[in-house]
Amino acid sequence: MHILVTNDDGVFAPGLLALANALREVGEVSVVAPDRNWSASGHVKTLSRPLRAKKVSLADGSEALACDGAPSDCVALPVLGLLDKPVEMVVSGINPNANLGHDVTYSGTVTAAMEASIWNLPGIAVSLDAPEYNSRGLDYSTAAKVGAMVAQKVWENKLPKNTLLNVNVPYCSFEELKGFKITRQGLRVYRDELVKREDPHGKPYYWIGGEAPSGIPENGTDIGALSENYVSITPLSLDLTAYACAESIEAWGFSK
Amino acid sequence: MHILVTNDDGVFAPGLLALANALREVGEVSVVAPDRNWSASGHVKTLSRPLRAKKVSLADGSEALACDGAPSDCVALPVLGLLDKPVEMVVSGINPNANLGHDVTYSGTVTAAMEASIWNLPGIAVSLDAPEYNSRGLDYSTAAKVGAMVAQKVWENKLPKNTLLNVNVPYCSFEELKGFKITRQGLRVYRDELVKREDPHGKPYYWIGGEAPSGIPENGTDIGALSENYVSITPLSLDLTAYACAESIEAWGFSK
Repeated sequence: MHILVTNDDGVFAPGLLALANALREVGEVSVVAPDRNWSASGHVKTLSRPLRAKKVSLADGSEALACDGAPSDCVALPVLGLLDKPVEMVVSGINPNANLGHDVTYSGTVTAAMEASIWNLPGIAVSLDAPEYNSRGLDYSTAAKVGAMVAQKVWENKLPKNTLLNVNVPYCSFEELKGFKITRQGLRVYRDELVKREDPHGKPYYWIGGEAPSGIPENGTDIGALSENYVSITPLSLDLTAYACAESIEAWGFSK
Repeated sequence: MHILVTNDDGVFAPGLLALANALREVGEVSVVAPDRNWSASGHVKTLSRPLRAKKVSLADGSEALACDGAPSDCVALPVLGLLDKPVEMVVSGINPNANLGHDVTYSGTVTAAMEASIWNLPGIAVSLDAPEYNSRGLDYSTAAKVGAMVAQKVWENKLPKNTLLNVNVPYCSFEELKGFKITRQGLRVYRDELVKREDPHGKPYYWIGGEAPSGIPENGTDIGALSENYVSITPLSLDLTAYACAESIEAWGFSK
């Protein structure tokens, strides 16, 4: 199996190297990842400019391609033929922070797996629920092991079409994990605030500030699973149709 | 009702002005839109740099704010307090090309409406199925009228939580429309190709090229509705959980 590994934190992020090395136990790994951080960058298809892909060496001397596109571009290019051989699975991560609830459409980590799904390839996003918004000095070993286990299971069982897996891993040793839960998207609580400042020339500018999002740890959800030290595996669909409310909207009586 | 109008083609796009003017019949309109084109840019939250919002005059002399963020940032800033008064609805568009099937997670037009939904506001994305990838000299009058009709209906009936509407309008006169259909996401057929070139210094670069996406005009889908000259209204949910396959994945037997 030929596995493409990418991320949204950039090709030199330690979470990517940990994931790539764990996946070498499962299949042959190629790394194509952004040359800079693309966090909260969403699902991108870069059509208005050309893209570069440059050979680089990761911290352990292994080879990778650094691309100046978004995480989803780093999937599209190899799928369309950038590499010598066809890609058979895409695993994205390890993101140092959890991607939960409504994070999934923002997340570069998750949208890279979405891109795989659009090309009918299995896509897996792996994120670590590290205690703080801090990507330095983290221990990725549990999440890397979990990522490899999930990739192996996906390979054996096949994912339904148009489906990807959003995997979030508690920050603890593998022994301390309570187990695995198949979950649904929970409810994020965003606590963004508008911070207005003035530049040295008296002109205003704005930050999207505020605290990091929290979430409601409801039973059955991704947020709930993590709060109890379970790995959360949420199957996501690219069919966003809100089937449950189609009928009620039909009843609104649209007519010319 | 205070309606925020935005788009992904940039604040000076003619589709935005047509939509804003049609919506002035339904409520009070504020325009905050990107200062450049953000097509296929996905759902973005700009956290790593500050954002600017500059007063500009549109072609008819009306006021707007041009923001250097993504379409979803152009929703987040006003929702967080950029304007004098609270936003009560977000309408995004009019995109000159249809946003169908799997386009929805890429589309700046649609992700702006997603951002509204995340903040518990009704969000509507309006796109025109113009015959070619061409945004010049198009007649937006039918789509603008449809956008205003949908906004009025949403205001009267309320959208369920976490739901937005993805509206696509055939390119014809209002009289030629067959009517309205509540649809599901159809199946896009992407025809992207990798185009490799060499720069003047002999170094390779890559375009995501190929033909514009086509789609399968299945009955009941957005693509099917447009192909029969109906307005397509697809309710979209921000809960992407693939409920249908949770059980089968449970059966894979994840364990430590």
